[in-house]
Amino acid sequence: MTAQTLAEPIARLIAEFGKLPTIGPKTAQRLTYFLLRQSAEEAQSLAAAILDLKEKILTCNTCFNLGTHDPCHICTDPTRDRQRICVVEEPLDVLALERTGVYRGQYHVLHGSFSPMDGVLEDDLRIRELVRRVADEPPEEIIVATNATVEGEATANLLRSRLQSSGVQVTRLAQGLPIGSDLEYADDYTLSRALEGRRDY
Amino acid sequence: MTAQTLAEPIARLIAEFGKLPTIGPKTAQRLTYFLLRQSAEEAQSLAAAILDLKEKILTCNTCFNLGTHDPCHICTDPTRDRQRICVVEEPLDVLALERTGVYRGQYHVLHGSFSPMDGVLEDDLRIRELVRRVADEPPEEIIVATNATVEGEATANLLRSRLQSSGVQVTRLAQGLPIGSDLEYADDYTLSRALEGRRDY
Repeated sequence: MTAQTLAEPIARLIAEFGKLPTIGPKTAQRLTYFLLRQSAEEAQSLAAAILDLKEKILTCNTCFNLGTHDPCHICTDPTRDRQRICVVEEPLDVLALERTGVYRGQYHVLHGSFSPMDGVLEDDLRIRELVRRVADEPPEEIIVATNATVEGEATANLLRSRLQSSGVQVTRLAQGLPIGSDLEYADDYTLSRALEGRRDY
Repeated sequence: MTAQTLAEPIARLIAEFGKLPTIGPKTAQRLTYFLLRQSAEEAQSLAAAILDLKEKILTCNTCFNLGTHDPCHICTDPTRDRQRICVVEEPLDVLALERTGVYRGQYHVLHGSFSPMDGVLEDDLRIRELVRRVADEPPEEIIVATNATVEGEATANLLRSRLQSSGVQVTRLAQGLPIGSDLEYADDYTLSRALEGRRDY
């Protein structure tokens, strides 16, 4: 694909789309040609949404979730339980937990997981801010809801050791068989965790 | 996911991304949160590329390919063969053919394929413009390079009937085993076409 064949604005948008995660060169091409077929209004509406995102979204300086206000609407909601802080890796995890409708406490977003191999160290995460927050206003419980991955596990261990001196109860999300799954198809790790975590019934 | 939980600019960009082909709700979320982590400059550069695309890209009124000039650089290139017109469904097909470096003729982009079931009729394609172009300046050969699909086949048939009276030779891309493929894994249709299209060796 020579520069001569591909008009510069087309090549540039293909390159820009290609920088996004999960979008390979073929998908970047398809998206670009799709936009070419759309009306100017539709393309402008996408561009405006991208610009608005960066202009209007703030980080909450209490829980470090993203929103249009600082402090955010969860931190300032008087109907929510202030005795529970759920610690997650990413803002998307807050959404996932909110969708369940089961949790009514506060959050703390780390913005990553502890992974020295990928260059993510303790200081890159909002752990120090969590320790300070817990010291300022100790809750009853801190629920560690990091991913059930190697990095999530490492982050959970780190959090436990950093929060130990606070005396606050630290819990972790249960690991085991996902609902609707067949035992015979479960992987060894999941099955081991399900066995270890068995409960009275 | 309630509106209260999800800040409006985030929800809006997720919705905008979700309108693009191949992007489902989960990917739209991932893209949005990825952009939130990027610098403002990077997001602006994506938005600017989208706006530029719609402002700077024109349709060539000879071949209906997309580019920054009308007539386009292929139609005006004096080193290219004017005796051959290759008819394709989409601008991306021009790119694919140009990448081979084998073809040095002209193009004609239909902008779709004949598919009455999907509401794409003959008048939605640039067939009338092709017939007029051939009548104005008859080439030696018209190469039908529509897709090897049901719709591509229907389009090829339609083109053949519409170009019959012009007296110009109409050819079609060969169909058969793709290079590097194993005969034992070829599907029945491909194998049938490969047999029908066998050549002296």
